[in-house]
Amino acid sequence: MPTLATYAPQYRDALLNDVLPFWQKYSPDRAAGGYFTCLDRRGQVYDTDKFIWLQARQVWTFAMLYNRLEARPDWLELARHGADFLQRYGQAADGSWYFSLTRAGKPLVQPYNIFSDCFATMAFGQLSLATGSEAQAELAQSTFHQILARRHNPKGTWSKAVASTRPLKNFALPMILCNLALEIEHLLDPALVESTIDECIHEVMEVFYDPALGLIRENVTPDGQPSDSFEGRLLNPGHAIEAMWFIMDLAERRHNRPLLHRAVDITLQTLDYAWDAEYGGLYYFLDAHGHPPQQLEWDQKLWWVHLETLISLAKGYQLTGRPECQAWFEKVHSYTWSHFPDPEQGEWYGYLNRRGEVLLPLKGGKWKGCYHVPRGLYQCWQVLEGQ
Amino acid sequence: MPTLATYAPQYRDALLNDVLPFWQKYSPDRAAGGYFTCLDRRGQVYDTDKFIWLQARQVWTFAMLYNRLEARPDWLELARHGADFLQRYGQAADGSWYFSLTRAGKPLVQPYNIFSDCFATMAFGQLSLATGSEAQAELAQSTFHQILARRHNPKGTWSKAVASTRPLKNFALPMILCNLALEIEHLLDPALVESTIDECIHEVMEVFYDPALGLIRENVTPDGQPSDSFEGRLLNPGHAIEAMWFIMDLAERRHNRPLLHRAVDITLQTLDYAWDAEYGGLYYFLDAHGHPPQQLEWDQKLWWVHLETLISLAKGYQLTGRPECQAWFEKVHSYTWSHFPDPEQGEWYGYLNRRGEVLLPLKGGKWKGCYHVPRGLYQCWQVLEGQ
Repeated sequence: MPTLATYAPQYRDALLNDVLPFWQKYSPDRAAGGYFTCLDRRGQVYDTDKFIWLQARQVWTFAMLYNRLEARPDWLELARHGADFLQRYGQAADGSWYFSLTRAGKPLVQPYNIFSDCFATMAFGQLSLATGSEAQAELAQSTFHQILARRHNPKGTWSKAVASTRPLKNFALPMILCNLALEIEHLLDPALVESTIDECIHEVMEVFYDPALGLIRENVTPDGQPSDSFEGRLLNPGHAIEAMWFIMDLAERRHNRPLLHRAVDITLQTLDYAWDAEYGGLYYFLDAHGHPPQQLEWDQKLWWVHLETLISLAKGYQLTGRPECQAWFEKVHSYTWSHFPDPEQGEWYGYLNRRGEVLLPLKGGKWKGCYHVPRGLYQCWQVLEGQ
Repeated sequence: MPTLATYAPQYRDALLNDVLPFWQKYSPDRAAGGYFTCLDRRGQVYDTDKFIWLQARQVWTFAMLYNRLEARPDWLELARHGADFLQRYGQAADGSWYFSLTRAGKPLVQPYNIFSDCFATMAFGQLSLATGSEAQAELAQSTFHQILARRHNPKGTWSKAVASTRPLKNFALPMILCNLALEIEHLLDPALVESTIDECIHEVMEVFYDPALGLIRENVTPDGQPSDSFEGRLLNPGHAIEAMWFIMDLAERRHNRPLLHRAVDITLQTLDYAWDAEYGGLYYFLDAHGHPPQQLEWDQKLWWVHLETLISLAKGYQLTGRPECQAWFEKVHSYTWSHFPDPEQGEWYGYLNRRGEVLLPLKGGKWKGCYHVPRGLYQCWQVLEGQ
């Protein structure tokens, strides 16, 4: 069996010759600022709303590649272009970040979603590394501290739940904080970085991980118990597997081999559970008891789920050499490359039905932008090349 | 071609021998009150949460059949059983209705959703006709007046939109008010009934109907203009067609033949637009410009869309005799009966994928209860038998 290193050029070439040029060509809004993200199959704009998640993620992507891969002026210019728009229009009066803006930057949807703040932190943290801008660094810092202050009640007044009846906490925030603490490490007190990492590892691996299932739950009670409810039974395999490469990064940093192997175990257990044996690919949502989930899109195959899985498997193989990682990488790689890329018009489809047929012919939308595809290609390329 | 009357027994038998007995057998919660609605393929309970929409709709269904079809004591008892639970636990302190409760009746989700109030009004309006209860009649009246007071800002503090940037109004409320005003006519001042009907007909047929498209938009600007945004481009064919039989009922009541024919026209235009020529059935959501909709479930085939369409076509044929109504009825009838009913375990599936395969093997859930199937079967039976 050849090593996985032979795949590295495929990831590099797709990143540099297809995906980045697609977004550089079609996404900049040179008239109003920021990026268009609602791009059809050919890259044409079909909606002009600007979603803070996607604006910030694209800033991060180009700034990160500028910092880590090559100091290309066009990449830095494009990152700054989005950051300018975000700085001008992205924040509400209290410093939190809106969810979406009109093309011109007027607020459309209130700052109900703490992940807008998470992605803004990533964006300005990376960009400040490239530019040395104090203002950008301070924006990343202040937003990060707001996230920490808001973390135990992230939805605040926007929550429709009567919290006292069935209090639940969600996996997404501790999962993202694992990654975010490393992303802006250069801007934080080292003690805060370490305590945040400690807490995130505990939350992800002890609180949300259910040893009886061998899987991570998307929602648990405040003391980490399962809840027999739609939310409590929900499994989001892509989320769980994505978190595992964040944990692998932390385990590597701390030279913690048992933690590394546990992250690989959970990756493999989740794959065994969530792989569609009939049509291939990973399901989007499942119910831990096998009941019908609420999400009507549960059986769809999403781009980000597959890219994040490839990262976790590549890292798992690189760091442990376990043959199951190699075998699963081959399987997921084969499914991903034969289903998601669009060889005719470039870039990748995001949404396939269970059979792997294109469900929405878009290259970008409200949730898909310039982030998971380039990040996944970059991460896999780097990891595979190092093997 | 035989008249559609030959189908009447099929609708009657399914209602009386399959669907109603299924809900009578499996849904009552004799320990805690109210109904279980999360029922798996065999009728077994897989979740015990109680959703106000579905509690109220089931009360309405059994009370309506008691009032209009046959004064069966078991139907009245079951309606009362749900109404008792709703009266005990359903309302917040301000009289608005929660969205969901635990099995025991503790509030889970706040009263953000005005349709909980609409279905509670229907439930207590019908039940008061059967029982003569003043308290139930007053509950229907007071809830109806609360809806009217809240109608121009139905989401209130629960809305995440910055309303001043892109104000939009939604089709669902005027559409439901068309039907609700007739449902509780016996409890309202006649002048209020007529003015509500006038306003609803105007909103549905003039404001939300887009003559350039020949279709009804799900959201428009406050002055009835299209908005080139995800919400503004959204089409919900099932909603539009369901509203058309409400309008036909109003047109018949007012002996307004032009209005009747316009409702039939819009039904037929929507069918032409939303029918899946490849796999059959009606799409769930579409974008008026043909762009990708936000809803990942856009191509799924839902039970209620098809039942409401059968009602509109049956009424349209009965009232106008137009042959297109007959032809479309045959086509939708054939698709519906060959895909949704479960001949082995009874009742109907709710959610099919684009190809018409079962997507979720449930008979009831968070949104599917004892309502669209029995109402559709009852309405079609009555209309078809009269032809």
